[in-house]
Amino acid sequence: MPRQTQIGLMSHAELVSEHESQNANYATLKTAKLTLDLTRGKPSPEQLDLSTPLLSLPGDGDFRDGSGTDCRNYGGLTGLPELRAIFGELLGIPVEQLLAGNNASLELMHDIIVFSMLYGTPDSPRRWAADEPIKWLCPAPGYDRHFAITEALGIEMITIPMRHDGPDTRAIAKLLAEDPQIKGLWAVPNYSNPTGVVYSEEIVRELVSLPAAPDFRLFWDNAYAVHPLTDTAAPVLDVLGMAAAAGNPNRPLVFASTSKITFAGAGVSFFGASKANIDWYLGHAGKKSIGPDKVNQLRHLRFFTDAAGVREHMQKHRKLLEPKFALVRRILEDRLGASKVASWTEPRGGYFISLDVLEGTAARVIALAKDAGIALTAAGSAFPYSTDPEDKNIRIAPSFPQLPELEKAMEGLATCVLLAATEKLLDQH
Amino acid sequence: MPRQTQIGLMSHAELVSEHESQNANYATLKTAKLTLDLTRGKPSPEQLDLSTPLLSLPGDGDFRDGSGTDCRNYGGLTGLPELRAIFGELLGIPVEQLLAGNNASLELMHDIIVFSMLYGTPDSPRRWAADEPIKWLCPAPGYDRHFAITEALGIEMITIPMRHDGPDTRAIAKLLAEDPQIKGLWAVPNYSNPTGVVYSEEIVRELVSLPAAPDFRLFWDNAYAVHPLTDTAAPVLDVLGMAAAAGNPNRPLVFASTSKITFAGAGVSFFGASKANIDWYLGHAGKKSIGPDKVNQLRHLRFFTDAAGVREHMQKHRKLLEPKFALVRRILEDRLGASKVASWTEPRGGYFISLDVLEGTAARVIALAKDAGIALTAAGSAFPYSTDPEDKNIRIAPSFPQLPELEKAMEGLATCVLLAATEKLLDQH
Repeated sequence: MPRQTQIGLMSHAELVSEHESQNANYATLKTAKLTLDLTRGKPSPEQLDLSTPLLSLPGDGDFRDGSGTDCRNYGGLTGLPELRAIFGELLGIPVEQLLAGNNASLELMHDIIVFSMLYGTPDSPRRWAADEPIKWLCPAPGYDRHFAITEALGIEMITIPMRHDGPDTRAIAKLLAEDPQIKGLWAVPNYSNPTGVVYSEEIVRELVSLPAAPDFRLFWDNAYAVHPLTDTAAPVLDVLGMAAAAGNPNRPLVFASTSKITFAGAGVSFFGASKANIDWYLGHAGKKSIGPDKVNQLRHLRFFTDAAGVREHMQKHRKLLEPKFALVRRILEDRLGASKVASWTEPRGGYFISLDVLEGTAARVIALAKDAGIALTAAGSAFPYSTDPEDKNIRIAPSFPQLPELEKAMEGLATCVLLAATEKLLDQH
Repeated sequence: MPRQTQIGLMSHAELVSEHESQNANYATLKTAKLTLDLTRGKPSPEQLDLSTPLLSLPGDGDFRDGSGTDCRNYGGLTGLPELRAIFGELLGIPVEQLLAGNNASLELMHDIIVFSMLYGTPDSPRRWAADEPIKWLCPAPGYDRHFAITEALGIEMITIPMRHDGPDTRAIAKLLAEDPQIKGLWAVPNYSNPTGVVYSEEIVRELVSLPAAPDFRLFWDNAYAVHPLTDTAAPVLDVLGMAAAAGNPNRPLVFASTSKITFAGAGVSFFGASKANIDWYLGHAGKKSIGPDKVNQLRHLRFFTDAAGVREHMQKHRKLLEPKFALVRRILEDRLGASKVASWTEPRGGYFISLDVLEGTAARVIALAKDAGIALTAAGSAFPYSTDPEDKNIRIAPSFPQLPELEKAMEGLATCVLLAATEKLLDQH
């Protein structure tokens, strides 16, 4: 066990000694020649095995949904009504306001922004591309793939601080009131990526109510809606109903998928919104698509049967994930608890732990870890333009590795955190 | 049997009598209260049954491709190498220049135009949206869903006459030489939709060689590459190699899919191009996608095994399709052969027969058929802006109906063609 002392309070001599000690630990770590990966929120093989029946579903002769549609043929842009009903129940969205798509909700988000750029939303005076620069609110730390979409499209991203109960709505209110060029906000309302934050009802009410441009949209990526890690799941708030009640029915665009329920790369995506938004989307999507893969939707329908089937299935994921999250927490506490050079989130669901290390050392920690064979998401990736203003955030994705590998990776990471911290503090002495 | 006389040569009295006779036929037709559909090129249930094993593939425990990739998880933007190798062999495209995607090649075409609008191609000085109006060459009769994409994006479509061996390259050469705003051409090189035309090698050579804007692109939709209806399949020309040899390696963008090989709505799409175009596409697609559905690609790999497997499978389709095409041809000859008020294509592959009726009567024929319960693709739909300049083209899609229904629909359609022709000629007398 390394010494449990608050590093910031050490004398120079103590620091030098601590630094030497961590340097020795790091040298040992490197000799282990690890190749470990904590980069992406990927389900583990054991989690994927939970959906093994999908590999032979729907089965010979089973290709019609309840309405008699031949799922093998063209058509059906909205997706299978029965599968939409199941996820409508889980997400609190009426079937007629929920579409089922192909294997990536990210694609739906991307396409909706592209359609808005090229054609405008139902509430836009003209296409967004004619009104550049378009601006976007980005609660951070957030999801790097969200930010990559808006960055690619030349949309100006504005960082919004994340609080324990959601993004800073006071900052948001001020910006929205001042700038009608702000057309969107990225949100992961339940078990946010990477902080695990669950947006409170009050925050959601503010987000759907605040004065804003008529075509301002909440990109409500409820990727972890049914992914609790505790007995009490965070509620899935009726953001569409709340927005309608606030007079802004077209503001939220809700996304979800089975990527972290069944097969990460071969699941079904969902898009829920007001009828006006749904019709608008279908009008444009109908130009590009011959309809989503309905056989895959039927496959999922047969596998789940109903919403209770999804919930039961998610408990099996939880059993596999909980020990990994517990292990990460234990090692962080054991190795970094007393040192006070790091803090971390304790998510009650989702896929990530957000680790804040000593300011100005995150990039160094990630580089040290990389040299020791431990891959972490690139420094700053949870921030717009991949720039962490304080250079302190590291996203930990514990789902994929096996427990022994995860333990090695976390122990190694803790060593890197302490080494980088002592380096930095020695520099300042 | 109706009278076999050349209607254009009839005396007024003969015309009146012919009109009365067809009117009586039409009245009888209406009493039958048909509900038949010749609108879309949809595979029949029997054709879809040919791929029944896909409904239970890849099967329990089978989720890794030959390189060991777990197809269930995220990633792999290029698609499965083994499946790409099979279709690379069929399409004459090296694996590294061929991607496998989700269930719709239409989506790939759409996205590539959208990426070009928003970012420009590798050969564009800036994004196309900054250089509007963008113009497009549209050989017609052509595929309505192609034209719908360019129309939606505000691209100016220029109709190019179709010849028996491909589009009129003299007209194309002139336009390309004059107008650098022309950035694309829609092409279905093998068994064109709806004419069945196969582009000759000479035409293809001209298309890849003609002087044009550096970012001019051939949207080479080889949807029917392996879909012959005769013993001698039209060759799949190496358009990418020919373009490279002509110094225009980035000009062709090749598309294909298994929509008319396995399941129309649950197949795999393909995109082949120069390495520069592939890299460009992946750069943009990587922002929107977590990779295509690899399990569906593995399913297809297991089903086909190799390129010979695809070819054998296509012979089974041919056996189901040939009698339908033969029936359509027989009825057209029997009912319209001597009248000289119609001509039609005799495709050697693909999904359609293109029927030209008396000039100025196609819309009337389609309306008459509709009133008699026979649905045909909307008048003009094979032309840009849905406008058939001569109002004479009707696309017949014989694949979906059963033979008895197809016979009734075609007999009814012939009656409508003759009735509309006599109406028109009487008007002119």
